[in-house]
Amino acid sequence: MRIVVLAGGIGGARFLRGLKSAVPDADITVIGNTGDDIHLFGLKVCPDLDTVMYTLGGGINEDQGWGRTDESFTVKEELAAYGVGPTWFGLGDRDFATHIVRTQMLGAGYPLSAVTEALCDRWQPGVRLLPMSDDRVETHIAITEAGTGERRVIHFQEYWVRLRASVDAEAVVPVGAEQAKPAPGVLEAIAAADVIVFPPSNPVVSVGTILAVPGIREAIAAADAPVVGLSPIVGGAPVRGMADKVLAAVGVESTAAAVALHYGTELLDGWLVDTSDADAVAVVEAAGITCRAVPLMMTDPEATAEMARAALDLAEASR
Amino acid sequence: MRIVVLAGGIGGARFLRGLKSAVPDADITVIGNTGDDIHLFGLKVCPDLDTVMYTLGGGINEDQGWGRTDESFTVKEELAAYGVGPTWFGLGDRDFATHIVRTQMLGAGYPLSAVTEALCDRWQPGVRLLPMSDDRVETHIAITEAGTGERRVIHFQEYWVRLRASVDAEAVVPVGAEQAKPAPGVLEAIAAADVIVFPPSNPVVSVGTILAVPGIREAIAAADAPVVGLSPIVGGAPVRGMADKVLAAVGVESTAAAVALHYGTELLDGWLVDTSDADAVAVVEAAGITCRAVPLMMTDPEATAEMARAALDLAEASR
Repeated sequence: MRIVVLAGGIGGARFLRGLKSAVPDADITVIGNTGDDIHLFGLKVCPDLDTVMYTLGGGINEDQGWGRTDESFTVKEELAAYGVGPTWFGLGDRDFATHIVRTQMLGAGYPLSAVTEALCDRWQPGVRLLPMSDDRVETHIAITEAGTGERRVIHFQEYWVRLRASVDAEAVVPVGAEQAKPAPGVLEAIAAADVIVFPPSNPVVSVGTILAVPGIREAIAAADAPVVGLSPIVGGAPVRGMADKVLAAVGVESTAAAVALHYGTELLDGWLVDTSDADAVAVVEAAGITCRAVPLMMTDPEATAEMARAALDLAEASR
Repeated sequence: MRIVVLAGGIGGARFLRGLKSAVPDADITVIGNTGDDIHLFGLKVCPDLDTVMYTLGGGINEDQGWGRTDESFTVKEELAAYGVGPTWFGLGDRDFATHIVRTQMLGAGYPLSAVTEALCDRWQPGVRLLPMSDDRVETHIAITEAGTGERRVIHFQEYWVRLRASVDAEAVVPVGAEQAKPAPGVLEAIAAADVIVFPPSNPVVSVGTILAVPGIREAIAAADAPVVGLSPIVGGAPVRGMADKVLAAVGVESTAAAVALHYGTELLDGWLVDTSDADAVAVVEAAGITCRAVPLMMTDPEATAEMARAALDLAEASR
């Protein structure tokens, strides 16, 4: 079974671990969001790709869900001693090595897809991990400064990590997306898929950014495979992260049903909501999307594997 | 008193510490060798500049004479886990931060001299540290492979660190030196100096490389200030390092007298040899260079300060 998953960071990575456990023999291609990539200290950092790679490769810091386990912060402390920032982005020493290797390879002319493959040679994530694009795409967020009332457009990471989404996101702009091309293998994997899954990743800045790369949305809409999604909103709030802030920026309510309708029937054949959102089922089905309510909290690997099985069952039913 | 010192790495740095202690009020400009610079992991590494900066700024690993004190090697281990080398160059985590800052600034368009000044803002070495040039110069060494008999030209660091100068150096080539220009301030400092000192640094790959930048040798030869040097050879062997190997490559015997004659009267007004080389005094003086025999082992800061005082005394006598 060929499964294609569009993944952001923590939510996508944890779901993928459950999916691998549910169908160990499946051929899984992950199309990873690179819209939250950022250049820090002259190094190219790809937080979502790395979170998937570290999580599936056994190197993730399980408690925080991102970054490396058994991490130290000597380089970061030294950079701060030089007065070089930003200090709000937590790069550990082990993590730095990944960014150093990536930046060196990019500088030598390798595309990000080839670099990602080389990094995965070490981590053996058990999936084929593709960046959505080899082209540079970086999401920016329009905000109004709390103190000055000044309107500013800041990098997504500054909004998410430094400000912790404490002010409203007025617009979400995936800079570079319009000019980007899908990375080699992305459209081919979508066309050849037996199932396409939107895991409970952020619908705007993760899955939405992937869909903003011209050609990807169209390929998914045109694919023979059923497309099923899992709601990242449970009981009217994001399971983790601050997805409500960026959903509001695109005029979408933070409910399981509203996210399904945001993706729409053009993309979705099936949608899973949490059992606590069972009343959303009728709304989503009325829109023409097959919908089921199942437990959607990734509390442990077995619960996550069960979610993955429910998604595959729903795909089968939506075929 | 304005003192200009042409410095390599460990020997130059330790001498400078003694000089600062001997004449705390002097205005010292260091022209640092950048011929042993190397790009590692996409980062620009300047071993000699950093050794001077760390030594005078209190961050040096005293035992080994290079690198940072209280160092860890997490990044290096991770790079090795990615299969990315070289593994023979010992970059620690603290040291990596220096190279990351430098590389980021160079990438942003700052010349190496401005970057060095910015790094010294943190370290406050108490001297003005100038790279010999803002242009890229990297010394290479011609060798014959022990096993295959093949002739190869390798980077100086590979010869020095990986091979530990275990094979003969057949030629020393400061690649890029001919096209390089002295960094801003270098020629001005030489012209304005009251004393110019060649510390006991390597006469070929440290001081020799600095002198290979067109304009620097000529400026020193033309300077009003007396030029005095301290022999890095004591009792027919280098005090530290493997200077004999690269001296042989340029046809110079490893003796205190031969090194003085290699610099020659064009450059040198005075030369200090170790007391164990007292018989060299007559040879050097016969060539027209004032020469004295004093203890030249930098066994501790006070012994080193005494060497610096002897050098300044000799400069006074050579004026």
